[in-house]
Amino acid sequence: MHAVHPADAMRTRYQEFLKEDIRSGDITSELVIPEDEKARAKIVCKERCVVAGVSDAAEVFKELGAKVTSHVKDGKHTERGETVLEVEGRARDLLAGERLALNLIMRMSGIATQTDLLVHKCQRVNPKVRIAATRKTTPGFREFEKRAVKLGGGDPHRYALDDAILIKDNHIKIAGGIKEALERAKRGSFTKKIEIEVQNRSEAKLAAENGAEIVMLDNFSPEAAKSTASELRKLKPGILIEVSGGITQDNAEEYAAAADIISLGALTHSYRSIDFSMDILKA
Amino acid sequence: MHAVHPADAMRTRYQEFLKEDIRSGDITSELVIPEDEKARAKIVCKERCVVAGVSDAAEVFKELGAKVTSHVKDGKHTERGETVLEVEGRARDLLAGERLALNLIMRMSGIATQTDLLVHKCQRVNPKVRIAATRKTTPGFREFEKRAVKLGGGDPHRYALDDAILIKDNHIKIAGGIKEALERAKRGSFTKKIEIEVQNRSEAKLAAENGAEIVMLDNFSPEAAKSTASELRKLKPGILIEVSGGITQDNAEEYAAAADIISLGALTHSYRSIDFSMDILKA
Amino acid sequence: MHAVHPADAMRTRYQEFLKEDIRSGDITSELVIPEDEKARAKIVCKERCVVAGVSDAAEVFKELGAKVTSHVKDGKHTERGETVLEVEGRARDLLAGERLALNLIMRMSGIATQTDLLVHKCQRVNPKVRIAATRKTTPGFREFEKRAVKLGGGDPHRYALDDAILIKDNHIKIAGGIKEALERAKRGSFTKKIEIEVQNRSEAKLAAENGAEIVMLDNFSPEAAKSTASELRKLKPGILIEVSGGITQDNAEEYAAAADIISLGALTHSYRSIDFSMDILKA
Amino acid sequence: MHAVHPADAMRTRYQEFLKEDIRSGDITSELVIPEDEKARAKIVCKERCVVAGVSDAAEVFKELGAKVTSHVKDGKHTERGETVLEVEGRARDLLAGERLALNLIMRMSGIATQTDLLVHKCQRVNPKVRIAATRKTTPGFREFEKRAVKLGGGDPHRYALDDAILIKDNHIKIAGGIKEALERAKRGSFTKKIEIEVQNRSEAKLAAENGAEIVMLDNFSPEAAKSTASELRKLKPGILIEVSGGITQDNAEEYAAAADIISLGALTHSYRSIDFSMDILKA
Amino acid sequence: MHAVHPADAMRTRYQEFLKEDIRSGDITSELVIPEDEKARAKIVCKERCVVAGVSDAAEVFKELGAKVTSHVKDGKHTERGETVLEVEGRARDLLAGERLALNLIMRMSGIATQTDLLVHKCQRVNPKVRIAATRKTTPGFREFEKRAVKLGGGDPHRYALDDAILIKDNHIKIAGGIKEALERAKRGSFTKKIEIEVQNRSEAKLAAENGAEIVMLDNFSPEAAKSTASELRKLKPGILIEVSGGITQDNAEEYAAAADIISLGALTHSYRSIDFSMDILKA
Amino acid sequence: MHAVHPADAMRTRYQEFLKEDIRSGDITSELVIPEDEKARAKIVCKERCVVAGVSDAAEVFKELGAKVTSHVKDGKHTERGETVLEVEGRARDLLAGERLALNLIMRMSGIATQTDLLVHKCQRVNPKVRIAATRKTTPGFREFEKRAVKLGGGDPHRYALDDAILIKDNHIKIAGGIKEALERAKRGSFTKKIEIEVQNRSEAKLAAENGAEIVMLDNFSPEAAKSTASELRKLKPGILIEVSGGITQDNAEEYAAAADIISLGALTHSYRSIDFSMDILKA
Repeated sequence: MHAVHPADAMRTRYQEFLKEDIRSGDITSELVIPEDEKARAKIVCKERCVVAGVSDAAEVFKELGAKVTSHVKDGKHTERGETVLEVEGRARDLLAGERLALNLIMRMSGIATQTDLLVHKCQRVNPKVRIAATRKTTPGFREFEKRAVKLGGGDPHRYALDDAILIKDNHIKIAGGIKEALERAKRGSFTKKIEIEVQNRSEAKLAAENGAEIVMLDNFSPEAAKSTASELRKLKPGILIEVSGGITQDNAEEYAAAADIISLGALTHSYRSIDFSMDILKA
Repeated sequence: MHAVHPADAMRTRYQEFLKEDIRSGDITSELVIPEDEKARAKIVCKERCVVAGVSDAAEVFKELGAKVTSHVKDGKHTERGETVLEVEGRARDLLAGERLALNLIMRMSGIATQTDLLVHKCQRVNPKVRIAATRKTTPGFREFEKRAVKLGGGDPHRYALDDAILIKDNHIKIAGGIKEALERAKRGSFTKKIEIEVQNRSEAKLAAENGAEIVMLDNFSPEAAKSTASELRKLKPGILIEVSGGITQDNAEEYAAAADIISLGALTHSYRSIDFSMDILKA
Repeated sequence: MHAVHPADAMRTRYQEFLKEDIRSGDITSELVIPEDEKARAKIVCKERCVVAGVSDAAEVFKELGAKVTSHVKDGKHTERGETVLEVEGRARDLLAGERLALNLIMRMSGIATQTDLLVHKCQRVNPKVRIAATRKTTPGFREFEKRAVKLGGGDPHRYALDDAILIKDNHIKIAGGIKEALERAKRGSFTKKIEIEVQNRSEAKLAAENGAEIVMLDNFSPEAAKSTASELRKLKPGILIEVSGGITQDNAEEYAAAADIISLGALTHSYRSIDFSMDILKA
Repeated sequence: MHAVHPADAMRTRYQEFLKEDIRSGDITSELVIPEDEKARAKIVCKERCVVAGVSDAAEVFKELGAKVTSHVKDGKHTERGETVLEVEGRARDLLAGERLALNLIMRMSGIATQTDLLVHKCQRVNPKVRIAATRKTTPGFREFEKRAVKLGGGDPHRYALDDAILIKDNHIKIAGGIKEALERAKRGSFTKKIEIEVQNRSEAKLAAENGAEIVMLDNFSPEAAKSTASELRKLKPGILIEVSGGITQDNAEEYAAAADIISLGALTHSYRSIDFSMDILKA
Repeated sequence: MHAVHPADAMRTRYQEFLKEDIRSGDITSELVIPEDEKARAKIVCKERCVVAGVSDAAEVFKELGAKVTSHVKDGKHTERGETVLEVEGRARDLLAGERLALNLIMRMSGIATQTDLLVHKCQRVNPKVRIAATRKTTPGFREFEKRAVKLGGGDPHRYALDDAILIKDNHIKIAGGIKEALERAKRGSFTKKIEIEVQNRSEAKLAAENGAEIVMLDNFSPEAAKSTASELRKLKPGILIEVSGGITQDNAEEYAAAADIISLGALTHSYRSIDFSMDILKA
Repeated sequence: MHAVHPADAMRTRYQEFLKEDIRSGDITSELVIPEDEKARAKIVCKERCVVAGVSDAAEVFKELGAKVTSHVKDGKHTERGETVLEVEGRARDLLAGERLALNLIMRMSGIATQTDLLVHKCQRVNPKVRIAATRKTTPGFREFEKRAVKLGGGDPHRYALDDAILIKDNHIKIAGGIKEALERAKRGSFTKKIEIEVQNRSEAKLAAENGAEIVMLDNFSPEAAKSTASELRKLKPGILIEVSGGITQDNAEEYAAAADIISLGALTHSYRSIDFSMDILKA
């Protein structure tokens, strides 16, 4: 076991999740299923989607000692009725993993499908635009939700508060202004990028003039975003423009021409799960 | 610290969640906000809902050293614009807790609101019926989602596989039949209830005759559920009837007359978050 | 490693136990035994018993990297002089596991032997009666003691306070009476059984009438237990009767006719260990 | 919290023990006892003993948030009917701690009482003799059992394999003899004592001549122990003599004249618990 | 306790460190010092230095329950004979913290003193130049060593591999060239900076032209560094130049004019500790 | 995994160290190096030394899934240019382990080389003298530093405060004198040695007369050490003499004739790392 591998850090998470579901033991299987009874099972997609979480489900079953065959790679478009995963092992182990495996696939596929839809819409307008998630994720489940966003073609944005400096309205209020806030931020290590959230065009200019490397236009109309972005790029070639706030599946593409990055919280805070099921058979 | 209290077990979870978001440090606040700058903030509801997670948000801020005043109790109907929580402390601490606090309230209020709606619909038909959640929860976040269901007036059902014996279709297939499965289940400790999932009326009868204390009617039409429930109750007075599978916000009340319990996965697998925001001010 | 398996959860416990005994290192073996010296050893039973803990001892040695051959299954009657386990590996590893392996087998065999004796005595009177343990176990060692009870043919009863609702005299005092306590208990999830402890026949009746599924007769004489049990079964067919309090190895069979379950603390709080030893040889 | 204090290391253990008993929650109290109901309780001794574990029980209740008054110090002789501890707090907390508190006091008092008896018997013969425990303790519970031995006036002997070098018969067999084993042991750090187990007088002499600082006479008759001890002390003034193996409550005093230390496993592997109970009252 | 605070994350580390030193208990103090004996102590500087670690030492003693008065702030120049910290509490606690407190102060002051010297030397030449540490730190002690560098006026550089993208010679070899490596790096999230190590001027130019935001000149002579830096800045205004490799306390200032950042491993891999001692008195 | 093995306890440490360096992920390699790209690498010694930490570096790479070939055993004299270790595996894994592996080897070789030098110097004078380390180690890294001392031929002295009783000047002050302190120490378990630190010859005599098994002469001149040692050995044959305080690489051999043990802090508090590098190649 090398818990320092990304794959192994995940193993710890799968075990925590299994522990949450199994707790002190699966008392039903322990009584009803003989200890060494073998079984086979398949996980089947019940509606068209971009599938995500199959590799996680596979790891869950491996964690439980089962043999696993994946039929679809995470990130692929999958049709209703397709088998995405087959597993074989002790019946007790397959039953112990069933619920968690499905919970992972259903949620992650929901997010990947929604992200993919949005990426395609927006990149028709501007092939370089990125669709980014936010930190509005389920507590404890962020790495899975961010990964689902990436599998749908999106940018994960900050995983945590140490990923980059991002000065938001609340910071500015307390620091006493954009200029002062940026001045302080530049005292940090040279290794970190500096982004700042602004509410209007004059703030945006002030930010660009004072060293911001990324400017986040918060709750701008598509038109305001466009003209502001254009002004900033003249002022500071290479500066990055992110639009955020009030962006939905419906209006995102209106921002696509102006922005380098479009970020929206709904990608992770209000997804609908995609339906999958597991069918099990005596081996 | 007494980690054995429900409240303290929660503290560990809040700390894990904060760790996920803060990771090695909030590099922005460390640069931009003076170490001992004080601030006040309020969390405001942006749409009508049954609020849940306010007590969790309060604990998050306490965990960070802030003083907290709650204005609304979890489980209450709350209007747009209401302040649910006020906090006061070091500005850095308030900013460090903001995202997690909102992530908790937004999700839990989404679930509580949806559950409450369903409970009211169904109890108009049968005041004794219970609306129950399933194990289709977000991995690692189950206790919060189950609690939100309870705050919305629902029954949490099994938190984990050790809560009760629940023999599902996959168990029956492998055990070789309902009778055999129940026979084995009864060898367990006398302290545990036995529930079994059935697909049709004759299976339901077989289950009742062989010692099932709760019978789960899976994917029954409302009519089939009604006639089956009535037959079982004659056969075994006191037996409990749960309906599950294919139940939605729309058709749940059609089952309310027949069932003791109506359970549905969508309560926790596809909720929409309720919008809340945090406004911060220099103290 | 899949720590979610019962077997793997145990591995964590064996490691904790080894850690307790080895702490920062076995300084004697590190000096006296060459690093790669191989050895063989056998664990021998020194008195007639129902053996328990052999599978645990085997796991302890596997944990240390040794090869293991079990000669007796847990739960079997074993004679003085029988070898129950053979191990082979690095001499240092066998020596490091010796004390823990013996500590497990000696205690668990002590409990299993005592339980088996009692089960046989009581089932001669009533073949359906169960002998149950209590929560009077050694802190931190409960799962092993409960398992030893099962290996001796007993029922483990509640492993922890979340296994079933059990209303004891102290609860009743505070709740203000049996009826009120049961009323409150019934508000819990439908998935849990309700047991209540009573001090006399009228309390027992009250309990049965108010929804108790199991009634525990505390400190009843055999006669009182018999007449009360008979009255309750008429009142509520299917109700379960547990007798507890003041039951010993000597008087237990007097309760066997009346009770569904006989529970007694001495099974786990005052056992005598069975003697075993380990003999080691250079390989 | 300073987990590095002995007291704080203990706190972790109490929490683990409480966790074992409470697991995911005390579902009975959560339903039957109002959240903020206050109560008082006292723990009463049911038979004459040397009490031990009262300070532990006190810590358990403090861990749960209760106020505690101890009436008896650990290590004191206590009479039947004496109240050893009073607690006051939330009724739920008192009930959650009851079983663990009693499990600790009952076991530890059992050990302390048995040790005290033996110390008195043997010190009547030789006031300098020490009664020592062994490593035959309950896995995971050693520190409590060793402490109970100390409270009864005994010597804890090695807590773990790093406390001192102790060369046993199995080490000697593999090392190829007493002389060779001692030679190797002396290569260790100068900070550690060297003890060796011997089977007869000539081995004992060999051990003393080759640098053993403590010689353990294993399974010697009282007479053989006496003459061997006397010879060794002439040979190496200041050498320590431990007798072990086959020592019981009944024959221990026969060794008291010859030995510096008498060690016996039964102190911790076969104790009888002393009876205590907890009475609770609404506050 | 809020382990999510920087201060609290530190507390965990202090406890681990104390655990390393105290392990199962300070057996000397437990015997020699009465449990509640009070004492006072002061920590005194034995040679001129920039002090660091006083706040850590203070926390160590607080962790042990002592009261603490700091006389000098970390980062200040301190003279021989100055008392930097006074503590008061249980004598056992002061003795338990002594070694760790001194180990922290001695090492951290060593690093801060050496960094401060270098910063002053180089900033006399170029007031904007930064002196940066590397990842050549003691395993498990990096955060303390990096903090000591900051207290001496240096830049910590990357704390870990997730802080920024830094493409080194080994990455370039495997990726197949500077251009290809940078192309791949730019596919990462827009939130991260990209730095690359180069061996000569033409590589440096290639790096700048292909999107590197920081160029690390590895093992350049002062002259080569100067001319390369000047060329890069013309090519890409705002690009950052780091020099590294073969830099010592002696030659660092020769690079100061050319570089934005001078990084050197010796700051943390070969420091000399500064001498401090603790004097204790009965209170 | 058997975490109770010395080797396995180490694995936990390597994982912590890797975690410190990799934290949430090696973002450079994840972008720049294809997931399954294979590579080979060798670690090369850059200056003459006694090498230490090669086995640790090997374990680090194994932990990451690489294959490892060691060319030099820890403790051996190694020349500039020698390859001490070769590794082969996924390029990402080799790069992830590089820094930690080098950090371990560089520091540990520094200590071993310095110790070896001193051992040779002093044993030329007195072949039985031991060079011992102190507890002046880097917090969290002690076991590695102590092991490096052993690899250089030294004695590790106490790893922690539970290894032996060592009464220092601060203990004596508080206890009220050498005699009283030793009296109390002798009440401890018979399994532990008693050492005491003294400031002059009369204290040394007092210590020897009152039961000290090891006397530490603190800050004695070589002459005073010699005459005191000789007097103590006459008084108590077999008593051990340790000199400590003010001992350096330069004056240590002047104490070699008088002492059984020479201990000095600089071995671990002010070492210079030995230079090593890793060269990587596409496989």
